[in-house]
Amino acid sequence: MNVAILGFGTVGSSVARILCDLKPDDIRLTHVFNRGVARKRVDWTRKDVVWTEDFEQVLRSDADVIVELVGGLDPAETWVRHILEAGKSVVTGNKKLIAARGIELDQVAHSHGAHLLYGAAVAGGIPVIPGLRQGLAGDRITRIEGILNGTCNFILSQMESGVAFAQVLKEAQRLGYAEADPSEDVDGFDARAKLVILSRIALRAGLKMDAVACRSITQVDAVDFGYARDLGCTIRQIAKAEARQDGHFAMVGPMLVPQRSPLAWSRGTENMVLVTGEYGGDVVFSGHGAGGHPTAVAVVSDLIALAHGSRPVDLPSRAVAISGEFELRHYIRFVVKDTPGIVAEIAGALASERINIDALFQRPGYKKDSLPFVVTVESCAASALRRALDRIAHSGWLAQAPLDLPMLGE
Amino acid sequence: MNVAILGFGTVGSSVARILCDLKPDDIRLTHVFNRGVARKRVDWTRKDVVWTEDFEQVLRSDADVIVELVGGLDPAETWVRHILEAGKSVVTGNKKLIAARGIELDQVAHSHGAHLLYGAAVAGGIPVIPGLRQGLAGDRITRIEGILNGTCNFILSQMESGVAFAQVLKEAQRLGYAEADPSEDVDGFDARAKLVILSRIALRAGLKMDAVACRSITQVDAVDFGYARDLGCTIRQIAKAEARQDGHFAMVGPMLVPQRSPLAWSRGTENMVLVTGEYGGDVVFSGHGAGGHPTAVAVVSDLIALAHGSRPVDLPSRAVAISGEFELRHYIRFVVKDTPGIVAEIAGALASERINIDALFQRPGYKKDSLPFVVTVESCAASALRRALDRIAHSGWLAQAPLDLPMLGE
Repeated sequence: MNVAILGFGTVGSSVARILCDLKPDDIRLTHVFNRGVARKRVDWTRKDVVWTEDFEQVLRSDADVIVELVGGLDPAETWVRHILEAGKSVVTGNKKLIAARGIELDQVAHSHGAHLLYGAAVAGGIPVIPGLRQGLAGDRITRIEGILNGTCNFILSQMESGVAFAQVLKEAQRLGYAEADPSEDVDGFDARAKLVILSRIALRAGLKMDAVACRSITQVDAVDFGYARDLGCTIRQIAKAEARQDGHFAMVGPMLVPQRSPLAWSRGTENMVLVTGEYGGDVVFSGHGAGGHPTAVAVVSDLIALAHGSRPVDLPSRAVAISGEFELRHYIRFVVKDTPGIVAEIAGALASERINIDALFQRPGYKKDSLPFVVTVESCAASALRRALDRIAHSGWLAQAPLDLPMLGE
Repeated sequence: MNVAILGFGTVGSSVARILCDLKPDDIRLTHVFNRGVARKRVDWTRKDVVWTEDFEQVLRSDADVIVELVGGLDPAETWVRHILEAGKSVVTGNKKLIAARGIELDQVAHSHGAHLLYGAAVAGGIPVIPGLRQGLAGDRITRIEGILNGTCNFILSQMESGVAFAQVLKEAQRLGYAEADPSEDVDGFDARAKLVILSRIALRAGLKMDAVACRSITQVDAVDFGYARDLGCTIRQIAKAEARQDGHFAMVGPMLVPQRSPLAWSRGTENMVLVTGEYGGDVVFSGHGAGGHPTAVAVVSDLIALAHGSRPVDLPSRAVAISGEFELRHYIRFVVKDTPGIVAEIAGALASERINIDALFQRPGYKKDSLPFVVTVESCAASALRRALDRIAHSGWLAQAPLDLPMLGE
């Protein structure tokens, strides 16, 4: 099987490296494409590899499978389409492309006798996609809860140890975990693309990307980790989707997770996916979700599957409407200028939406003019809570906008 | 695709139940075989299912795939052989059969154009086998550490909360987790069969079952959990195999695992598998390893894969010699009749094998004539430790034989 690589960055060169080292049966690297390919050239691949910056040359070559690691929608989408239409198979780690166009591209592949594999698109070196397709197709999966962005997990697990957000972000950027503009990660868009892909495979549900609400982790403060600890919890960026009798739910954002939940175990840049099946119960996958080598393992595994003539189980999905209206407990952190009557006002606003207060916490040692305290409430719809908080949004005693975080169960 | 089930016990009836509920595309249950089938008959399957106690009838039927849930080697082996020779595929959860005869049976399947799938043979509802085959074939896996026996995990995690072995065992038997004769579980033979299967797929190493040393969990005492906690650890039955430059290593038995290791997270009857790859690092799979429904999920997933024409990635293994000589730290618990000079004797025995003592612990509150204390030693070969302990095996001050447990790293 002849293989070409489009995009010779960290992952692309790791793929070439693993193919050189492991020499998996009958897989031969023949072409490497990259813009300005001269500066990418290495001397440790097979001598007859063609290094090129001409996509058409790769398309017309004798490569049977093309590994797309260019990323993004444009020109990746056009290229992948052309490759599949030429009857060649594609292995990609492009989450954006698969989230946005995966269903169409699957059909293009199908109608040209080609295959489209994308095990590397979600959680890199953790075999979540093959595990779901080949190993859990016999269950009815009803829920996905994932830590799908290593950057956010690094930031939040460092904040858990007491480091401030700005400082951790700087550190993450220095280590190459975070981009100069970290919005894609911290605001949840990266995790959302992965959640859309997982929902398609696990829940057989086609979610519209824009319909999945994302909340940023940038609002989370050191004080929230202290309160979370008092509640036996920590804070993680969670991508959550659920199929219920009354519809489909999905959202991405910071949430409180119990210390006893597997989701609290993940440290550093680790990824974790917890799926719940009607018959098999909870299954957890965890490991390194990103980085050159782990992601390359997923790419090479897909190449080996193609070389062995192994086709993934095809699980058709249907488009569904989604809502972010999970019924969950919530943590609400207020920062106030302390005056009498605040709790009464908050309690009144919540009561007007029939939301029950669970508990009220106030850690000592803060100044009266900027006093953080926390209210937890029983399960309620996010919209009801939003309306209740809107009622007090303009109160003079608020030193900053309240932060509400969903609380996951064990 | 027509499916017959051999063996209509807990798992068999769960398979039928899931096929009835999910109605996965084109999969039709046509035959159920069981001895004394009349008492097994249920009224919720398709009306035209043939209930039979005649294996030959199933073999000659129009079933395309036969699910073997009879268990054990005899007659399962003969039956599976006949089915594959008839060109029909087999899906099985029979770990004993696959551990002992899997390689031969794979060849029989191959030479008759049939398939043999056994995702249910290891860790039931956790897709470890598909995850390894389809998702990690692109890595070089060097180590497996697994909690592969739910009964032992239940017993040890209950003992961790302070319940005595005999009492937990009785409880496990009452709940149906443990057999009247628990040896297969507690002495490690069940986990060993699973380790042999995983090693074949992950390490591509064919281990001889009898060559894998098993140690029983029955020697572990309440006091060991106390000392383990002092060391930041707990105790689990671990099935461990490793491929190193200097050979292959494998063993099964109770070991100390750090509280911070994923292996310590598993509770109750949960299973967990941690594999370490040269490129992808650590990957953890966990969930329900046994029980009717989770195991049936693995069986039905294999059926769906066959129905979709998806073939598993075929990873050839080679027979290897193995050793139990892991170089690991060890925990050694002595129970002694306290007299002067004991520590000197122990230290001398260890020094004679060039084993370095790491620390010595003694919890207060025990009687002088039956005093437990613990010595931890730096990494050493199991055989050297065995020789050192043999030197003092007949000492008059030993109230019982010392217990040594390997200590795993984080």
